[in-house]
Parts: sequence; C-alpha cells; structure tokens
Amino acid sequence: MTSHHYEKDPAAIYASSFSIIRQEAGDALATLPPSLEPVAVRLMHSVGMTDLVADLRFSPNAADTGLAALTRGTTILVDTQMVAGGISPRFFAQGAALSKNRVLVTLNDPQVSDIANEMKTTRTAAAMELWRPHLEGSIVAIGNAPTALFRLLEMVRQGAGKPALVLGFPVGFVGAAESKQALVGEAAELELDYIAMLGRRGGTPMASAAVNALAIAALGQSDKPM
Amino acid sequence: MTSHHYEKDPAAIYASSFSIIRQEAGDALATLPPSLEPVAVRLMHSVGMTDLVADLRFSPNAADTGLAALTRGTTILVDTQMVAGGISPRFFAQGAALSKNRVLVTLNDPQVSDIANEMKTTRTAAAMELWRPHLEGSIVAIGNAPTALFRLLEMVRQGAGKPALVLGFPVGFVGAAESKQALVGEAAELELDYIAMLGRRGGTPMASAAVNALAIAALGQSDKPM
Repeated sequence: MTSHHYEKDPAAIYASSFSIIRQEAGDALATLPPSLEPVAVRLMHSVGMTDLVADLRFSPNAADTGLAALTRGTTILVDTQMVAGGISPRFFAQGAALSKNRVLVTLNDPQVSDIANEMKTTRTAAAMELWRPHLEGSIVAIGNAPTALFRLLEMVRQGAGKPALVLGFPVGFVGAAESKQALVGEAAELELDYIAMLGRRGGTPMASAAVNALAIAALGQSDKPM
Repeated sequence: MTSHHYEKDPAAIYASSFSIIRQEAGDALATLPPSLEPVAVRLMHSVGMTDLVADLRFSPNAADTGLAALTRGTTILVDTQMVAGGISPRFFAQGAALSKNRVLVTLNDPQVSDIANEMKTTRTAAAMELWRPHLEGSIVAIGNAPTALFRLLEMVRQGAGKPALVLGFPVGFVGAAESKQALVGEAAELELDYIAMLGRRGGTPMASAAVNALAIAALGQSDKPM
C-alpha cells in the first residue's frame, strides 16, 4: 500500500519554501531595497517561480508607503473576487490587528453591467467608477484586468483621488505588459507609488501575496504562516 | 496629455488572447486529444504562459468525464476560496445552464481548526474531512495546497468516495511537484481521471480555469468570454 510521507506542519512548509526561494534567488533579492525583499519573496512563493526580480518594478518608497497606509487603516480596492479571496482574513477580519482596513470588490455590484454598456468598456473597468469615493489614500491591487490598470491611470490623471500605493499585476496576452509599462512610465509624473511585475506574468495570487506581505510587515512579523 | 489606446471589448480581448496562444503553442496543442485542447488553452490564458503543454498530464478520458459530470450536475470541491472565486458564476449561478452543480469550499468551516489540530495536518487537508459525503462523482479542483492532493489520494485509497475528475494544480516549492507526480503515478491503480500540471507551477487561476473550460465545453460553447 502506497503511503505518502509529506510535510504537514504549516510552519515547516513555509520555512522550507522561503529557504528554497532565498537559496535560488538570493543574489537577485539582495539587489532590492530591504523593505521590498519580503514582498518579492511572497510573490515568488505565490506562483512557484524564483525568477521574478528581473521583471519587478517599484517606486523607491512603495513598500513603506503601503505599510503606512495599512497601519493607518485604508480601503484595499481589488479588481476581482479572487484577489479578495487570497487576502488573508487573519490580518483584516473583525477584531484582527489590521481590522481598520477593508477589502472592497465592486465587480459584482448590480450597477456594473449598465456602466460597462454605457462606457463601452469591460465590466472590470466599469466597476472602478464605484471606487471613486475610496481612491484617495487607498491601496489598489489589480491581479487580473489590464483594462483596470489603464483605467486607473486615466482616472488619476483626470483628478480622481490618488491611491497611496498601486499593486500592478494584470496577467495575460492582451494589454497586460502594456498596462504595467504604462504604470511604470507614468508613475513619477502622476506621483504614484507602485509595485508591478512587467510582462505577461502577474495574476490574482501575486496581487493577494503583495497585500499579505505588506500586512505582515505592518504587523512587524516576517515570513510567518498566513 | 497621455491617453491610452487599448482594447476594451471583452470579446475582442478574448479572441486576441486565444489567437496569440494558438499561434505560439499551436504545435504543442495539436499533440493533445481534441477535448483537452480548450482546457490547455484556458490554462495558458489564466497565467500568461504558453509553454505549459510539456508539463500537462491527463488521463485519456479526463475532459469527457469532467464534461459529463457537469452536465449531470455534481459538487465541485475546491481547496480555497480563491479557486471558488475564479469559477465563473455565469455558468453555475442559480438559473444558469449548469446550476445543478455547486461549488463547495470547506476551508472556513468552524470545525476545521479542531480537525487540523487533532489530525496534526494543515487546515486545507483537515477541511477535506468535510468533503467525504460529496466525494463520489465530484470534481475536485486543487489550486493551492500539496497536502490536499496528497490527502485526497490517501482518502481514495482508503475507500472514500471516488471523484469523477481530479484537477491537480498545487503550486510552490514544498510538495507541489511531488503531490502531482503522485497523482499521475497512482491514478491508474486508483481508477481516477485527472488533469494536472507537473512541477512547481500551478495555482488557483489554473484550477479555476480548468473548471471554466470544462463548463464551456459542457455548454457546447467554445472560447467565449466568461
């Protein structure tokens, strides 16, 4: 009878994962500002790939700004339910240390279909109209739709509230690379702090992982199980 | 003033994405059984990577079995809320064509912590004890935890109900590759149909994408926006 011997202790699994990541990507990780390193490690952990630093872009104060926003308490605006589902409730649930923050997904709001038809855009971009009252000082985490990131840049340029931090992780073949390049190219002019993954790679696990990494930093923990 | 010209029509974005995927991966996709091809395309679409066929493993009837289960109506057992969040409600919501199916996540059930402590395993694996009444004929989609896939193989071997199809997409550095290798190695003996991605890669977007691809096939659609 086949029986499997596998690690079942969550703390040991995390420790072993981070050890493998630091072993494989240590040289690249050492080139990052210290506050970005744990974010990069969590990104790698979320997708099982250690070659991400070459495509990682960020503003100098990105991690510190995100950490400060979470400590103060803000709205975390996310483009899909999947990103919200990946943000650890241990940090943000009622009664938890960071419970002054809240995660907001507007994609399934009943108004969204009508807005999308009227604006002739995707539901994801349309859903962002409902972000307007919450944008100023927020953390925006985009893990799926390039149109959402493009639209965010337009909205900020047109005077909508300015997020404290933009986590740019759209994924895929049409517009993903371009939208993240636009974020990196325009961030200085728009005075936006950001963390983003260039190219086609990205996705909801990366967007959630970035939020979780900042939450752990805000709690003064590091590399603990979530 | 910078203005972005980007594709905003969801149908055009999908069409263009699938065209790029088939252009880059066409030769590899042509080696797959016809029923698996749309699943592979959706997997690539979910992560922005076209080099997945080399690591894709499946039993010969996997896609057809999954399609039949969805058509009949079954329980889709998933290991995390993120996988559930990525399964398109358009197919499964009340009143939708496949509404006889339901997606079940047991991870946040209040009993899970106690079961995990008692069994000395991860919360994910512990949550699967609550799958037992639903396993027979189900579709199991694992997008995160290697321990869940290992535990599923143990449960099936010990006589728990047998899923109609196992979608094996644990991701990461500790146990992910090993758990998927175990699935592939034992599936024939356990008489399990499966689709899995070997190696470290995997993740919740792949697990959701596989379910969505089968749903689209069950609806007799192909490559339509979701």
